[in-house]
Amino acid sequence: MSEARFDVVGIGSAIVDVLAHAEDVFLSKHDAAKGTMLMVEEDQSDALYKDIGPAIEASGGSAANTMAGIASFGGKPAFIGKTMADQLGGIFAHDIRAVGVHYDTEPLASGLATARCIILVTPDAQRTMFTYLGASGSLSAADMDEDLIAASKVLYIEGYQWDLPETKKAIIGACETASRSGGKVALTLSDPFVVERHRNDLFDLVNEYVDIVFANEQEITTLFRSNSFDEAVEALEGRVDLAALTRGADGAVTVTKDKLIQTPAMPAGKVVDTTGAGDLYAAGFLFGYTRGDDLKTCANLGALAAGEVICHLGARPEVSLKDLAAKHG
Amino acid sequence: MSEARFDVVGIGSAIVDVLAHAEDVFLSKHDAAKGTMLMVEEDQSDALYKDIGPAIEASGGSAANTMAGIASFGGKPAFIGKTMADQLGGIFAHDIRAVGVHYDTEPLASGLATARCIILVTPDAQRTMFTYLGASGSLSAADMDEDLIAASKVLYIEGYQWDLPETKKAIIGACETASRSGGKVALTLSDPFVVERHRNDLFDLVNEYVDIVFANEQEITTLFRSNSFDEAVEALEGRVDLAALTRGADGAVTVTKDKLIQTPAMPAGKVVDTTGAGDLYAAGFLFGYTRGDDLKTCANLGALAAGEVICHLGARPEVSLKDLAAKHG
Repeated sequence: MSEARFDVVGIGSAIVDVLAHAEDVFLSKHDAAKGTMLMVEEDQSDALYKDIGPAIEASGGSAANTMAGIASFGGKPAFIGKTMADQLGGIFAHDIRAVGVHYDTEPLASGLATARCIILVTPDAQRTMFTYLGASGSLSAADMDEDLIAASKVLYIEGYQWDLPETKKAIIGACETASRSGGKVALTLSDPFVVERHRNDLFDLVNEYVDIVFANEQEITTLFRSNSFDEAVEALEGRVDLAALTRGADGAVTVTKDKLIQTPAMPAGKVVDTTGAGDLYAAGFLFGYTRGDDLKTCANLGALAAGEVICHLGARPEVSLKDLAAKHG
Repeated sequence: MSEARFDVVGIGSAIVDVLAHAEDVFLSKHDAAKGTMLMVEEDQSDALYKDIGPAIEASGGSAANTMAGIASFGGKPAFIGKTMADQLGGIFAHDIRAVGVHYDTEPLASGLATARCIILVTPDAQRTMFTYLGASGSLSAADMDEDLIAASKVLYIEGYQWDLPETKKAIIGACETASRSGGKVALTLSDPFVVERHRNDLFDLVNEYVDIVFANEQEITTLFRSNSFDEAVEALEGRVDLAALTRGADGAVTVTKDKLIQTPAMPAGKVVDTTGAGDLYAAGFLFGYTRGDDLKTCANLGALAAGEVICHLGARPEVSLKDLAAKHG
């Protein structure tokens, strides 16, 4: 692992977020369960967009946010994800490269537009997402840069991709490549509905390839059909080397085969938008992990990064996480 | 004026802002004078974009921001400005309509892309702008909706448009329409370099059509080649009915033929980005003016709106200015 050119390579959706404030009644009107992610078709996305208030656009995508966070800490991440050669695709590519993530997935020349995620932030700072996958759903085996994957200490993959049969197959290929070259495989469960839809597949994946699982409370209890968080933690033990579980304001729990480390949340100020909290937790954790930090430090770096991103609109850090970490020792 | 369907119709550039943080040395490297606006060609804009850090996109444009502010106060604004039928054009149109501005300028079907303004915010919260006009420079006489202009209490125009000979002519036509139908004409001087480039033309415009001038200290002293702000105020008196002059942290001065009202700035918190301060000052002022408020109230509404917009990234209000004004009585 010492010769790896990259700390982490993330594979996921290349998405531009469209962020707007909304009231709770607006979510009910659109049959959305608060805090979750709904897949929508282009016409549904367009209709919803017409209905929302003024928005801002910012690059997003779960694994892409995590890679941006690792870069902000001073780590060496890479990203694989598909855009179209349109204006939003240009925005996505610019932002991820500008923060220091290696990114060279070939964009589609025509066809589906770059993915958009309409993110509605309610007054309680919760985010509810409506994703139109567009071009990002076209990620295939041809995009899996084997040299890049083999040159990375960790391969980081999104549960979100399990909705896409072709992409799923391509990612399993990437897991093979990573395992063969001595890299670790990390998975984020992404969303409770995703886990519900693909429980068996995700189970198999965890058993066969995954070394590190990232999940929040809802996702991990959904995976094991557990009645409580503690029951889910028990189910996890022995199944993976390492699990990093987030519990919102209640902090995080790091689980290994033989221990359990509890760490507190570290909001940097008033919480205004929880978009990206899990993504940035994974960023801090993986930055520490690939640097060889002890697990408590990994968890604290995760909490620091998540604590920054929830205090402003948008899913990527607004300050240098390297500077922020230095300030916190 | 009582039967007017709109309080204000603004004519200006339909722009999407690309906002990023930058250090002072970055501005020097790109030969930019801090706090001003530079016109750039598409290739210059693209080259600069490659060089900046991660950004967010948000609808902008000076007069468009002012109309968005008036809508946020609960007023009835309309906007005329040209986009292309591309993704950024869709974003611009969505955002201005979503906030309640009447907007139906036909987008270009092909040709130049929707205008982009790269806005670099330095650590002192100053903004420096690099505008690629694109489609917005194609605004012409055909876009001047005479019924709309005649149905508005105030026509609000940007000095920025004086860089575009065709658009300038079209706007002078709009001034004729407004004057004929008993509407007032308001002009914002926009930028000291714009004033320098078009001093004589802007002078003629002020003498012939303009009832209300909006300017900051630098712009008004540049217009009259004055050595001091006080000298510029003297030069103004008698020339226009009303001038609303902003002086940053030092507040604002409202000048009429026979009086001068000083009002303080009202920052809502820590100043992080001055983008849109002048635009939102004009919004508050014109909202009060078209509602029939006394001039001190107009100035205070301007300060309130400017004070909100400088406390976050981006040039449009993040909260309802109507609610904010209610809170401040």
